[in-house]
Amino acid sequence: MLQITSFSELTQHLQKISERKRLVVVNPSDTQTFGAIVKAVDAGLVSVLIIGDPADFDLQLISSNPFLDFLECKDLYEASALAVELVKKGDGDILMKGLVNTDVLLKAILHKEKGIVPYGHVVTFIAAMEIPTYSKLLFMSDPAVIPAPNLRQRIAMIEYAISMTRNFGILKPKIALLHGTEKLNPKLNFMDDYKLILEDARKGLFGDAIVDGPLDIFLALNPALGAIKNVETAIQGDADVVIFPGFEAANVFYKTVITFAGAEMGGILYGTDKPVVMTSRSDSATSKFNSIALACIM
Amino acid sequence: MLQITSFSELTQHLQKISERKRLVVVNPSDTQTFGAIVKAVDAGLVSVLIIGDPADFDLQLISSNPFLDFLECKDLYEASALAVELVKKGDGDILMKGLVNTDVLLKAILHKEKGIVPYGHVVTFIAAMEIPTYSKLLFMSDPAVIPAPNLRQRIAMIEYAISMTRNFGILKPKIALLHGTEKLNPKLNFMDDYKLILEDARKGLFGDAIVDGPLDIFLALNPALGAIKNVETAIQGDADVVIFPGFEAANVFYKTVITFAGAEMGGILYGTDKPVVMTSRSDSATSKFNSIALACIM
Repeated sequence: MLQITSFSELTQHLQKISERKRLVVVNPSDTQTFGAIVKAVDAGLVSVLIIGDPADFDLQLISSNPFLDFLECKDLYEASALAVELVKKGDGDILMKGLVNTDVLLKAILHKEKGIVPYGHVVTFIAAMEIPTYSKLLFMSDPAVIPAPNLRQRIAMIEYAISMTRNFGILKPKIALLHGTEKLNPKLNFMDDYKLILEDARKGLFGDAIVDGPLDIFLALNPALGAIKNVETAIQGDADVVIFPGFEAANVFYKTVITFAGAEMGGILYGTDKPVVMTSRSDSATSKFNSIALACIM
Repeated sequence: MLQITSFSELTQHLQKISERKRLVVVNPSDTQTFGAIVKAVDAGLVSVLIIGDPADFDLQLISSNPFLDFLECKDLYEASALAVELVKKGDGDILMKGLVNTDVLLKAILHKEKGIVPYGHVVTFIAAMEIPTYSKLLFMSDPAVIPAPNLRQRIAMIEYAISMTRNFGILKPKIALLHGTEKLNPKLNFMDDYKLILEDARKGLFGDAIVDGPLDIFLALNPALGAIKNVETAIQGDADVVIFPGFEAANVFYKTVITFAGAEMGGILYGTDKPVVMTSRSDSATSKFNSIALACIM
């Protein structure tokens, strides 16, 4: 039985498959992105097409590596459009952002005709967090892309996360709808959406998954302190996925476990035709590598 | 120069003052609250009046301790009203919640004539967090009481927090208005309030304090990862106080650092005539003791 509970297990699993995915990356001219790419090539996960300005790269190093290719394009708007085009027509399996503004790459990804978002699809960011003080990988959404999710976007987040956990061998994922309280208090924000999602869950619309909420962090992720609350939930501090009420809470969680609990993360855009590795400057080279690995298992 | 950077330093400081505050506590019949009270008595911080049902307490132990007193009152509504009355008329310096529903005690506290909230005052919860991976105590608001703060409530939180940090010897506290982004993007929630608060800060209305935002967790609390963002802020990952955009984000932060980063906390209600120690069942005895210490220094 496949069971992946850490990023090192993920890498090992991908190495067993031993099929390189084709990664297309826009301007990986910063050392962290470039380092992550080379590490992913060396690990046997990917072959890489780099699109960028030749002046910013060590072309000799690139040409000496059979799994690294280079395509010249100095303008970042054009480079982004080109990368999306290549992935769209099947010349790449994964799109990756290097040193380019998120807006610029997103514009190319979301372009109505030339982009890679199927009509009407919700695009959201899903991260996997490896927190040293948690027993397994924790998936979360959305700390980055959707500022104020509506009901349809929340449901998409849940469905995407369930689909992602399947790739990690989680047969019946536990999905916690987070809030500051476990009481479905209609006076509080976000509760209307949660109520409707719970109705869908009771009807079995999410398939073989446990969806419960509202739950606070203790009930979702802390078995000992959650138990004190005496709330009946099948999640019992052992969630695989946490869905946050909004961007602010998700972003706070994401950056807090990195800052204070030594967490490493990987994250991708979901809802696009092909996975997109969308890292930010403050991500470590390890996190960027993890994000590539995450895209490889999609 | 007084400088208190941890809860143990706080206790030591209070012991030097060697003046016992009078604590009035409603039904501390759970072992954790009772344990915290006895510890605070033994440490010399307080003398305690317990209000509750005699059947739930070891009266012999209480009567043998010169700093423990007992007042019989079996009904929790009456006990709450009595505790508030005693504190209001000056027979107690600090009010504390034991095993009684928050709503019940809050009702007595907020009562128009008999309560202890001055007319028009904002009542909010301020916590001090001791996070092993942060260099000093971190003050935060509001993870518990105000579900959706308005501008006036946010300003009160800031003023209360500044006032609290003064007691810890922080001459020019750094206060971060948290969000998921550092861009004052008017399309995002909460930004209008932040903009007005920043205008007040520029006018010097908060006195000798640095108020800046919006900042994300990295810019507020993580010097290394904050620096990568190249954002100009006087806070530079070294905040003394974090003000959260809403209850959900604050609550997530509070419970995440406890769950994953081994944080201990202390928290009190602020805005009342006298400090109120408002703990919850999942707080450890240590946290309950810290909360008493926090109330003692107000």
